[in-house]
Amino acid sequence: MTSRKSFGSDNHAAAHAAVLRMLASASDGDAVAYGDDPWTEQATTRLREMFGAQGGVFFVFTGTAANVLGISLMLRPHESVICTESAHLNVDECGAAERIVGCKLLTAPATDGKLTPELVAAQLSGRGDEHRVQPRVVAITQATELGTCYSLAELAALSRFCREQGLLVYMDGARLANAAAQLECPPAELAAHADVLSFGGTKNGAVGAEAVVVMNDALGSVAPFLRKQQMQLSSKMRFLAAQFLALLEDELWLRNARQANAMARRLAAGVSAIPGITVCQPVESNAVFALVDPGWVPRLQRDWHFYVWDEAGPVVRWMTAFDTTSSDVDEFVAGVREVAGLAVS
Amino acid sequence: MTSRKSFGSDNHAAAHAAVLRMLASASDGDAVAYGDDPWTEQATTRLREMFGAQGGVFFVFTGTAANVLGISLMLRPHESVICTESAHLNVDECGAAERIVGCKLLTAPATDGKLTPELVAAQLSGRGDEHRVQPRVVAITQATELGTCYSLAELAALSRFCREQGLLVYMDGARLANAAAQLECPPAELAAHADVLSFGGTKNGAVGAEAVVVMNDALGSVAPFLRKQQMQLSSKMRFLAAQFLALLEDELWLRNARQANAMARRLAAGVSAIPGITVCQPVESNAVFALVDPGWVPRLQRDWHFYVWDEAGPVVRWMTAFDTTSSDVDEFVAGVREVAGLAVS
Amino acid sequence: MTSRKSFGSDNHAAAHAAVLRMLASASDGDAVAYGDDPWTEQATTRLREMFGAQGGVFFVFTGTAANVLGISLMLRPHESVICTESAHLNVDECGAAERIVGCKLLTAPATDGKLTPELVAAQLSGRGDEHRVQPRVVAITQATELGTCYSLAELAALSRFCREQGLLVYMDGARLANAAAQLECPPAELAAHADVLSFGGTKNGAVGAEAVVVMNDALGSVAPFLRKQQMQLSSKMRFLAAQFLALLEDELWLRNARQANAMARRLAAGVSAIPGITVCQPVESNAVFALVDPGWVPRLQRDWHFYVWDEAGPVVRWMTAFDTTSSDVDEFVAGVREVAGLAVS
Amino acid sequence: MTSRKSFGSDNHAAAHAAVLRMLASASDGDAVAYGDDPWTEQATTRLREMFGAQGGVFFVFTGTAANVLGISLMLRPHESVICTESAHLNVDECGAAERIVGCKLLTAPATDGKLTPELVAAQLSGRGDEHRVQPRVVAITQATELGTCYSLAELAALSRFCREQGLLVYMDGARLANAAAQLECPPAELAAHADVLSFGGTKNGAVGAEAVVVMNDALGSVAPFLRKQQMQLSSKMRFLAAQFLALLEDELWLRNARQANAMARRLAAGVSAIPGITVCQPVESNAVFALVDPGWVPRLQRDWHFYVWDEAGPVVRWMTAFDTTSSDVDEFVAGVREVAGLAVS
Repeated sequence: MTSRKSFGSDNHAAAHAAVLRMLASASDGDAVAYGDDPWTEQATTRLREMFGAQGGVFFVFTGTAANVLGISLMLRPHESVICTESAHLNVDECGAAERIVGCKLLTAPATDGKLTPELVAAQLSGRGDEHRVQPRVVAITQATELGTCYSLAELAALSRFCREQGLLVYMDGARLANAAAQLECPPAELAAHADVLSFGGTKNGAVGAEAVVVMNDALGSVAPFLRKQQMQLSSKMRFLAAQFLALLEDELWLRNARQANAMARRLAAGVSAIPGITVCQPVESNAVFALVDPGWVPRLQRDWHFYVWDEAGPVVRWMTAFDTTSSDVDEFVAGVREVAGLAVS
Repeated sequence: MTSRKSFGSDNHAAAHAAVLRMLASASDGDAVAYGDDPWTEQATTRLREMFGAQGGVFFVFTGTAANVLGISLMLRPHESVICTESAHLNVDECGAAERIVGCKLLTAPATDGKLTPELVAAQLSGRGDEHRVQPRVVAITQATELGTCYSLAELAALSRFCREQGLLVYMDGARLANAAAQLECPPAELAAHADVLSFGGTKNGAVGAEAVVVMNDALGSVAPFLRKQQMQLSSKMRFLAAQFLALLEDELWLRNARQANAMARRLAAGVSAIPGITVCQPVESNAVFALVDPGWVPRLQRDWHFYVWDEAGPVVRWMTAFDTTSSDVDEFVAGVREVAGLAVS
Repeated sequence: MTSRKSFGSDNHAAAHAAVLRMLASASDGDAVAYGDDPWTEQATTRLREMFGAQGGVFFVFTGTAANVLGISLMLRPHESVICTESAHLNVDECGAAERIVGCKLLTAPATDGKLTPELVAAQLSGRGDEHRVQPRVVAITQATELGTCYSLAELAALSRFCREQGLLVYMDGARLANAAAQLECPPAELAAHADVLSFGGTKNGAVGAEAVVVMNDALGSVAPFLRKQQMQLSSKMRFLAAQFLALLEDELWLRNARQANAMARRLAAGVSAIPGITVCQPVESNAVFALVDPGWVPRLQRDWHFYVWDEAGPVVRWMTAFDTTSSDVDEFVAGVREVAGLAVS
Repeated sequence: MTSRKSFGSDNHAAAHAAVLRMLASASDGDAVAYGDDPWTEQATTRLREMFGAQGGVFFVFTGTAANVLGISLMLRPHESVICTESAHLNVDECGAAERIVGCKLLTAPATDGKLTPELVAAQLSGRGDEHRVQPRVVAITQATELGTCYSLAELAALSRFCREQGLLVYMDGARLANAAAQLECPPAELAAHADVLSFGGTKNGAVGAEAVVVMNDALGSVAPFLRKQQMQLSSKMRFLAAQFLALLEDELWLRNARQANAMARRLAAGVSAIPGITVCQPVESNAVFALVDPGWVPRLQRDWHFYVWDEAGPVVRWMTAFDTTSSDVDEFVAGVREVAGLAVS
């Protein structure tokens, strides 16, 4: 790993110092295991209030686990999930939905990572036909895997359509903080369009903690059991809770997300001026997707860590984190300009 | 929670300060996610060497996850696991083996928590019969759920029998450290009798980290995939690795386990002298199981946290941890003596 | 296979001629597939009425399939089934419950193959504890795998207890006809104690057909989907339906079962008089379990097909079928007497 | 159901008289259950020889079951199946692959129902990446769901590509007979390109029987167990075997398939001449897919049973069966001409 800032993933960042301090602070004498402790009580209460979660809040270890637990609360064995082809749930979870939940994913093409009522509607054939899995959950990602955000109007239209169709909504919020920062709205406004959602901590400064937020009261009762069965019940739960307590204090979660988003916008602005680079998705969270000259990629990767998203193009993903600084971005943009044969501005 | 030391579980203890320091130390700039970082490299290398693990070492979040991943490396869909009725795998994992792995557990009664060749043999009927699940894995716990330890001779006899019978051995080592401390042997001597085992950190001073140790070279190749699918792939893996690095430094894991074990022996010695109390399992790790006067339980539970293991009796479990002190134990023994109407010694 | 009548299993019998005639009769021109045909309509209507099944009747191919579909209608992922250790569901279905449904079976020892409220109660610890699977279904077999029958009073007591405890009842009726014949009661009186049951055709003269009978209205709606998913939806369904039409005509199912039961009683009476043989289960359906001199088994198996149920003893199972005749039995009893060194009576 | 010949599905046809006769003939006295009988011995031996199946032949009840058993022989938990979007396995099995096998299906668009090396190659990204399911099986259907057939050259190219890529081939042969008839080749020539395939009986004159044919020796050993676990082990197996014995006698399977195929060609020829109808898939088995005037569909469905395949168009599917006659077809074509306002030719 180079000493330069990674643009590979928000997962490459360290933990925020406040999170580590809270971990140390929570390591104070005995506490009953499995969540019957004051830190968990406090963190879940605050999150329930923040989201208006009638069904409870449940900490898990990873984003994949949050997605699996979340959808498993809503599905019977013959029911399926509609998501985008590019959904993390579909592509990057080694088939956990199929293996652990046992459900089929019906995938819709969505170039910007966002489902629409039309895309969902196209997956609804065969309802009532015993030969077909029955769509029950629409899973969206906010912010999406492509760095875009559903607007509040888009969320409203989609959730209204789902309600009319008897579909429940799951919102993968591994980067919900970034979406809330982008849309300048309270998380509850996003959550109001979901039956179950996740609220990610790991990519936003935590050591490793995600919250499954159950909005729909009727769906929460089995969550403790399924969390345990899905190997997500932490014995020393206070250490998951403490991470969220740190992120909630003085809205650290929001400040972190704002910083990451601002850095992505700065990066996009910087590279947009460079001929040979086309930013190819709206920059609405902490990622910049860009079409770049194929020859530049290996030269840039000598000094910076980032991923090629699609060899065709190629399209690269540059991702910022809570700890990305302006000078990290400026240094990177200068490096790109150099590779592009431009004077460093 | 009372301010007095909990005897409820080693899970009630906080994290060891050295673990927290190592977490902070690992939170140092960027690191590639999912384990491609120097902390993970160092921790897995040291654990591989310590155990002689040909198939690799894989960190997961919980003991249940370690058990599920471990057995899933060894089973085809029609194969089953033989374990004791009291096995954590059988009783305390909310059916994860059946739901996540899809396997049947064939359970043997074992009053001391230990399988024997005879108990295993009694589960082997129907081999080759397509109507029956086919036993493939023998899962043992070391130290057991009842605070006992398999001796090295018992392990040798059992693993030899399994090999002869074409059975693989999984060792649930959530408290392997306590067993190694008790038997005064290197962990590799225990591990040599298993094909896959776990090495627990959480109950021994970690924040939350377990290692799946794959002794058998042929079994390791699918582990990365199954770990991800089972929602156990940590993105900021360095923070799991760091916990083990702290535990490995100057054999902290062993010192912690020795302390817990010593405190259990001290506790057992203290209460054994009290009429009305019968220690009912050999104290070979960090738990004391005792038959006590039913009337004493609520009185003791006013001041101390511990669990009734079996209402019949009742049998209680008193568990010590790495941070249990002699005065914690002495205070507790004094409390029991008081309830028993004895002079406090 | 010897030309002598098999006492190995009621599965060894051929199909009843009336069943074959009805198959031929149903093979009459086109019919819409998957059950939208007049034979299926008629057979399911008659069975619904016969049982008072509010939730519908669903044909499947095997007894294992009936059990799996039946319990899957009643379980959420964290819920378990209580059954006897000797239940077909537990022993003889190659782990289908665990693999296909994903549920744990909590098994109770029952020397006569019958659960009691006490045996069920002993499996109910840990309700509400997220670490434990939650018992939801009590699965009984009527007639049992050991040839015994629950009396109507026993069924009433058990189903009342289950209702009080919030448990649902599944009744494996692979040999329900034999139980109804034994108890001289309409099947609906048996079914009234279950939420879901199976009604077996295969062992009672069919080619291969079982019915899943859903008494509880609320449980039927997902059955068509789960039947398809569980690979039990017959395209040419009329041929399953026709088998039941044949069995229903003039109560052939009852006449067949009465004959099989009568032959078992005759066999038991015949061998009971022979020193060295102890009939060790009440003969309440079409099986005789007997403890016999070990040396006799191979000699008898030279001429007759039957199974050793338990090598210890040994205990053998002699099973009669709808087409077993008095002379078949008498010939067998004479054979046993000969082996026993007695004059043939 | 109208009295006119159904063009809805080959599943709408009755059973062939020879199949029913063989059922009756097999119902002759006792036979050991679960396949240890002479009919099963004879039928599996003949099929093994006919296909050159090194791994054995296993009867199951339905096409869905054959597909599920077939792919389950080849997959580990993190491995996936590549198939077409229109594959029966993907669309019409109520999610059995995901629920029962637990695997993800990677679906490729294929307008003619056929995979190509290029389509498969496009699904191979992420091999070796623990976040992704690992493609292991390529599942093709021969003849396809769209009535087309892979040519022998296409099969050779695809199977060669798969071998080079370390992929196994599953061939859904619910209509393999129709493909063999179309290509005028022995089934073994088709099977040689697969590791496991199914050979359908039900759509070709049977009552309900499919064979899973395991070409690859190494894959057969677990098949008996998985068949039982998947609820496909028939107790009176002789009645499945007898159906195949009838179909094998004097190549009835081939004569039936030839008749069905010829009738589809006749139908296609008849309607092709009608303006307003476009046959939109090559007619290479027993189905005709045609784009028709939307107004004609309800008028035709008053007299004939058939399905609209795609509301857009609409595209209809007209399917013939072993018992479709020339006059059935001619009557139908005349009906279409009448609806089209043409003189009946």
